[in-house]
Amino acid sequence: MTALAVGVTAPRGFAASGVEAGLKQHGGRDLALVVNRGPRAASAGVFTSNRVVAAPVTLTRSHLAAGTLRAVVLNSGGANACTGRPGARDAQATAARAAAALGLEPGQVGVCSTGLIGQRLPLDLLLPGIDQAAAALEEDDEAALAAADAIRTTDTVPKTAVATGDGWSIGGMAKGAGMLAPGLATMLCVLTTDAVLDDAGAASALEEAVRTTFNRTDSDGCMSTNDSVILLSSGASGTAPDPAAFTEALREICARLARQLIADAEGATHDIAVTVAGASDEAAAEAVARAVARSNLFKAAVFGNDPNWGRVVAEVGTVPAEVAPFDPSQLDVSINGVMVCRQEGVGEPRERVDMTAREVRVLVDLHAGEARATVWTNDLTHGYIHENSAYSS
Amino acid sequence: MTALAVGVTAPRGFAASGVEAGLKQHGGRDLALVVNRGPRAASAGVFTSNRVVAAPVTLTRSHLAAGTLRAVVLNSGGANACTGRPGARDAQATAARAAAALGLEPGQVGVCSTGLIGQRLPLDLLLPGIDQAAAALEEDDEAALAAADAIRTTDTVPKTAVATGDGWSIGGMAKGAGMLAPGLATMLCVLTTDAVLDDAGAASALEEAVRTTFNRTDSDGCMSTNDSVILLSSGASGTAPDPAAFTEALREICARLARQLIADAEGATHDIAVTVAGASDEAAAEAVARAVARSNLFKAAVFGNDPNWGRVVAEVGTVPAEVAPFDPSQLDVSINGVMVCRQEGVGEPRERVDMTAREVRVLVDLHAGEARATVWTNDLTHGYIHENSAYSS
Repeated sequence: MTALAVGVTAPRGFAASGVEAGLKQHGGRDLALVVNRGPRAASAGVFTSNRVVAAPVTLTRSHLAAGTLRAVVLNSGGANACTGRPGARDAQATAARAAAALGLEPGQVGVCSTGLIGQRLPLDLLLPGIDQAAAALEEDDEAALAAADAIRTTDTVPKTAVATGDGWSIGGMAKGAGMLAPGLATMLCVLTTDAVLDDAGAASALEEAVRTTFNRTDSDGCMSTNDSVILLSSGASGTAPDPAAFTEALREICARLARQLIADAEGATHDIAVTVAGASDEAAAEAVARAVARSNLFKAAVFGNDPNWGRVVAEVGTVPAEVAPFDPSQLDVSINGVMVCRQEGVGEPRERVDMTAREVRVLVDLHAGEARATVWTNDLTHGYIHENSAYSS
Repeated sequence: MTALAVGVTAPRGFAASGVEAGLKQHGGRDLALVVNRGPRAASAGVFTSNRVVAAPVTLTRSHLAAGTLRAVVLNSGGANACTGRPGARDAQATAARAAAALGLEPGQVGVCSTGLIGQRLPLDLLLPGIDQAAAALEEDDEAALAAADAIRTTDTVPKTAVATGDGWSIGGMAKGAGMLAPGLATMLCVLTTDAVLDDAGAASALEEAVRTTFNRTDSDGCMSTNDSVILLSSGASGTAPDPAAFTEALREICARLARQLIADAEGATHDIAVTVAGASDEAAAEAVARAVARSNLFKAAVFGNDPNWGRVVAEVGTVPAEVAPFDPSQLDVSINGVMVCRQEGVGEPRERVDMTAREVRVLVDLHAGEARATVWTNDLTHGYIHENSAYSS
């Protein structure tokens, strides 16, 4: 582990690479490998809940169901979604080529793809690129950054994070800038750890970490066909972590990566934390926060630095009573610390709200219990419209 | 009935007016009256399903529950929502003043308001305006157009429609340009008819007509606190209509008004009809169509004249199987008549799709049954962002 210690190579036992295979229209790195070289192996994955599922997701799920992953190959420049049986065979060929290059079985390789839906991947470029990526594998920071760079689509920066525990560490990389919505945010993420885990422990920690982080990130309400979060454990630290401590560290790293996704969301000028407090239970708090986080009207108002609490309250009221019991006449709404709506009526003057900072904090108090949840989103801007109307992606 | 026959005065027995009471920041008509002068009276209303409900909605519901409306007073320039008990008293005072001016009981007057949430209405302007509107009542087209003009907020044009049946007719006016979503679209609408109805017949016809028209209009996914559709019957034709024929005529007029709302949606450059066919039942078809109609990514693509079917398919896949059973591998998607996605894979070349017309037609075939439904929406544009970020509304 180097002094810098970024991304997926920060934990011991991992190598990575990012190369240019020629998949992207405008060039740049587009193919990444992450490989577990450690003494042990455990793995887990969480995937999109979309019923339209890209070929690499179906393949990687089947590999995880039957065994343990030792490597993940990721490409930008094409999602390999809605590509039918030919696309399924392309994903198989991708795993097989990576396995051959790494001395593994195809079932030990996960595959992740991101880019335009409905186009075949150019295997004549992709397969030689895998050989090139295998030859470029290194265990240093540069390799981790090259891998994080290679999975970018409209992301303006690579996203990495590292957390350390008692004798073990976790590293991660992620991509995602649009089509970010729960279950999951539209995103790819690979997490690595040198902690000693088994597959079951890896799965339970990953599910819990994702639940309150990536699954509460909702940039534009649009759920992808390709979302994948994969955790690989090398066991190279020789240390079996306390499960609660490991889960908390994993949650922390997922939260930091999710936060980076929102900060880089297409066209965003404000990151918005929508916190709902005083809810009857956490699910109710999350449902209300998610509704507010999906309001185009409120998100456009935030772009205009307008603390338009009426648009917040209108959205809160759309959540059915059976999902979130509360008395609308008790609703309080604060924006950046100023309670602009008190008991469903006018509170402090909206002129007191300072909207100039990048981060905007909305707090809705339902006065119906003790539970709370936060959903992160961003404002709706001319930049978002431009990026999603001027280009296919 | 004049030769022109527009709007709420087209049926016999109705008078209307629209005046400037001074409620709107930038001036113009802002107060409307519609009055039933016919030999009989029946009425019905359908309102927002939002749990945060504006004071005039609560008041009008209570009047309809206890009796029959003879008049509706409508204002733009303020929603009277989230205004607490003072706002409730303002709505009561509005109905009482209109009743006094018209020789009615307050319980015979419905109240509708539209504008910014969270501000009291200036009653010192509103109440004299009601007297002015009562004095201006006429039964001609000019009066119907003045009333339709007075309820505009960001609407660029007044919206009216007329339908005729066997000896009877229906007229209507509506407003709404943003915060348009189901249950209802954010909108006010008054419908008048000279057909002989009772309250129960009016209610059943109105509910059925709204269900497949205004409730399938979804401009921006944002549900208002003030949505109201009110039907008044004067019985002045002396003709009791066939219920099915009347419901169909009412549905037709609601469809035409809903279509006008979408055509005038904030910033829109394309009207989009999302039709889902081959569904197991109508509710499934509607749920899938609504999901597609709410995709910011797809709606931004349409703004860019990009027939991005991948974004359609990704959204179709977010609908749970228990809501809409279908096999994703059987999905077909056509845009403007070109089947760009066949069996979840690439179909005809997207270059064949002509996106230059204002109207865009998306057809999703689930191949899971015979039912179908259409939801109307519009594209997501720089104009929408501008209107909703540069001004509070």
